[in-house]
Amino acid sequence: MNKKAFKGFPFVEGGVCAAKGFRAGGIHAGIKAGSNPDKNDLAMICADKPCTAAAMYTTNKVQGAPIAVTREHLADGMAQAVIVNSVNANTCNADGEKKAQQMCEAAANALGLKPEDIIVASTGVIGQPLPIEPIVNAVPALAASLNDKGNAAAVNAIMTTDTVPKEAAVEFEIGGVKCRLGGMLKGSGMIHPNMATTLTFLTTDCDIDAELLREALREVVFITLNRVSVDGDTSTNDMVCVLANGDAGNPKITRENADYETFRDALYAVLMNLARMMARDGEGATKLIECLCDGAPDDKTAEIVAKSVITSSLFKAAIFGEDANWGRVLCAVGYAPAEFNIHEVRVTLGSSKGTIEVCRDGAGVPFSEEEAKTILGEEEIYVHVTIGTAGGSAIAWGCDLTYDYVRINGDYRS
Amino acid sequence: MNKKAFKGFPFVEGGVCAAKGFRAGGIHAGIKAGSNPDKNDLAMICADKPCTAAAMYTTNKVQGAPIAVTREHLADGMAQAVIVNSVNANTCNADGEKKAQQMCEAAANALGLKPEDIIVASTGVIGQPLPIEPIVNAVPALAASLNDKGNAAAVNAIMTTDTVPKEAAVEFEIGGVKCRLGGMLKGSGMIHPNMATTLTFLTTDCDIDAELLREALREVVFITLNRVSVDGDTSTNDMVCVLANGDAGNPKITRENADYETFRDALYAVLMNLARMMARDGEGATKLIECLCDGAPDDKTAEIVAKSVITSSLFKAAIFGEDANWGRVLCAVGYAPAEFNIHEVRVTLGSSKGTIEVCRDGAGVPFSEEEAKTILGEEEIYVHVTIGTAGGSAIAWGCDLTYDYVRINGDYRS
Repeated sequence: MNKKAFKGFPFVEGGVCAAKGFRAGGIHAGIKAGSNPDKNDLAMICADKPCTAAAMYTTNKVQGAPIAVTREHLADGMAQAVIVNSVNANTCNADGEKKAQQMCEAAANALGLKPEDIIVASTGVIGQPLPIEPIVNAVPALAASLNDKGNAAAVNAIMTTDTVPKEAAVEFEIGGVKCRLGGMLKGSGMIHPNMATTLTFLTTDCDIDAELLREALREVVFITLNRVSVDGDTSTNDMVCVLANGDAGNPKITRENADYETFRDALYAVLMNLARMMARDGEGATKLIECLCDGAPDDKTAEIVAKSVITSSLFKAAIFGEDANWGRVLCAVGYAPAEFNIHEVRVTLGSSKGTIEVCRDGAGVPFSEEEAKTILGEEEIYVHVTIGTAGGSAIAWGCDLTYDYVRINGDYRS
Repeated sequence: MNKKAFKGFPFVEGGVCAAKGFRAGGIHAGIKAGSNPDKNDLAMICADKPCTAAAMYTTNKVQGAPIAVTREHLADGMAQAVIVNSVNANTCNADGEKKAQQMCEAAANALGLKPEDIIVASTGVIGQPLPIEPIVNAVPALAASLNDKGNAAAVNAIMTTDTVPKEAAVEFEIGGVKCRLGGMLKGSGMIHPNMATTLTFLTTDCDIDAELLREALREVVFITLNRVSVDGDTSTNDMVCVLANGDAGNPKITRENADYETFRDALYAVLMNLARMMARDGEGATKLIECLCDGAPDDKTAEIVAKSVITSSLFKAAIFGEDANWGRVLCAVGYAPAEFNIHEVRVTLGSSKGTIEVCRDGAGVPFSEEEAKTILGEEEIYVHVTIGTAGGSAIAWGCDLTYDYVRINGDYRS
């Protein structure tokens, strides 16, 4: 899919290696016996020096063991490297924290760092013991392989049911100095963010105060990752983290001024695009659904309505069928727990083939089914819901519900 | 599926005609041109005298026009007949209330009643004008056909994507006098009740005070219909209503005493079974999922957890695949918005083939995959989640997520 431009930031290649001073890599450690040797399952990112770091975690009460360990290691707001495996989530296992700690120790030894400098993450099946030997055995070779073009090998390693790798990076200027921020993210199921989502790793060479880095991450996650839903299930292992090494040499951002806003907008450009990619590549998905709700009394109301639309199983199935069943949009708007006048609601469906109004003042308006079919035949579908005349608005991203979602999840553990 | 016994109430045949003094019928009015003439689309129920009546309605802000009209007609707590159509929901149409009123007038004329005595309901596609002529034209023949074995024709008329008719009735004693209560319900999609659900029509010959009838309905709906979810979508047209004509001649129930409890339990026996049938026949479903949560600090917490489990798309897909992926149960328990200690959680899966513990103290325990496969091969699957040692408990009902759900909903309007 095409990336969506935002405030003119140019996209650059390189994902987590786009910013200066970051190396990455990925390897097939063989965490699952007999798995495809061409698919990596262990990734590493390493900065050239200690970084200011910030992270957000899932709000699920069940939390993967790696999250507990990473929280500890980030208590001082600093980190220098990341180790992450797919295949197994290392969650709900009695020895989970011990093994997450072992991963950090192995990475630290190989990179000449301390275990406390390492961020650890895992994704995959919940509740099966993590085979630690293949990981520990593979770490030295993985560490030796790190390089500034290693982002592709790294993103390959974090993919689970993803069908495409998800990377984005932009360039921006702070005080006349060029900076970069890039990242990678995995999908594709158990996606219903709350506070943070899925696994997302971001790197930047911009010099920024630790507190402001946390604040920017929080602000942007709420309007990007937290606005995506694939299936309504909030994962146990969600984590988003960002490392900032300051290598760009920009005047350090220490206040919430215009420079801070530029940094935050660049972060938005990257996370918004990663969020869209994640929705488009939701398990079994054939289409991205982008819902804009506006005219709301406040942004929160708009968000509740937009998320209600993109999480409706019935509407998602209708979009798969390219059926302009707008009654299901209105139904989902109607059961959203928010206050507004249903008789002011207007709904428009759109894509690159045009837009078509299907509902005004809460009631249907005649439209051409043929035109609707043409519009819904595209891969990126827009739903515009106006619920009043006030200024609140929000965008949420989801995907259609397909046969393949059922196939993928009917026997995920095998 | 077999009905589930409750407190020894014997099941009887007859659905909405099981109680004395109620006649019913159904007819193919041809609301949709060219539709199958063997499938009824218009039903009627009529009592021999004015009845004490109670109803509950969807909490969706978008409400079908028939709901507005029925609310008015039930303002005095009395009604004598029901008219209901399938195919078209008569929702989000500018002339909806006028047409719902016309349906009442036609029924009243044919039955020799006043329009205010009539409860009207519709189910089907949202946002398409209701063809009123076929309905008005069919009402005289339908009224003439009403009889005390007409429940089968009536329940046939309210089916939409239902694959089986759903009826239940029980016999109970009040003051030594035999009474009956029976009902019919439709599924099968847009099922995520809030206050009431889907369309449910109940009749009883028990003599009971109007206020107590409302109270019993409210109490029982909260722990039956409101505990079912097929797809998380709360319909715009949900309604449950009960008519009581007093024909049994029992000593009238006027206080919340043992007689009231017997009546309420009989109502529970009927609605619980209808709720289970609805879940089992959820769109595309191959299996019923019954989740019992206990050990909770209160029933509400238990309900939140049980509903979180049965609405998880990932768990529903795993049950379709007969895959004992208990990590998804724990994940759904973990993201339920309720307070408890995740490290006390225990999960058992079961069916008529036995039970198997898969998680204890929030972590996995070894189990036989072969035994799990045998258990999950059945059509009624039980999930028992214990979240502590207190006395709160709740049961919720759902179904698996299958290819057919997607097929049915990919092109529902055609």
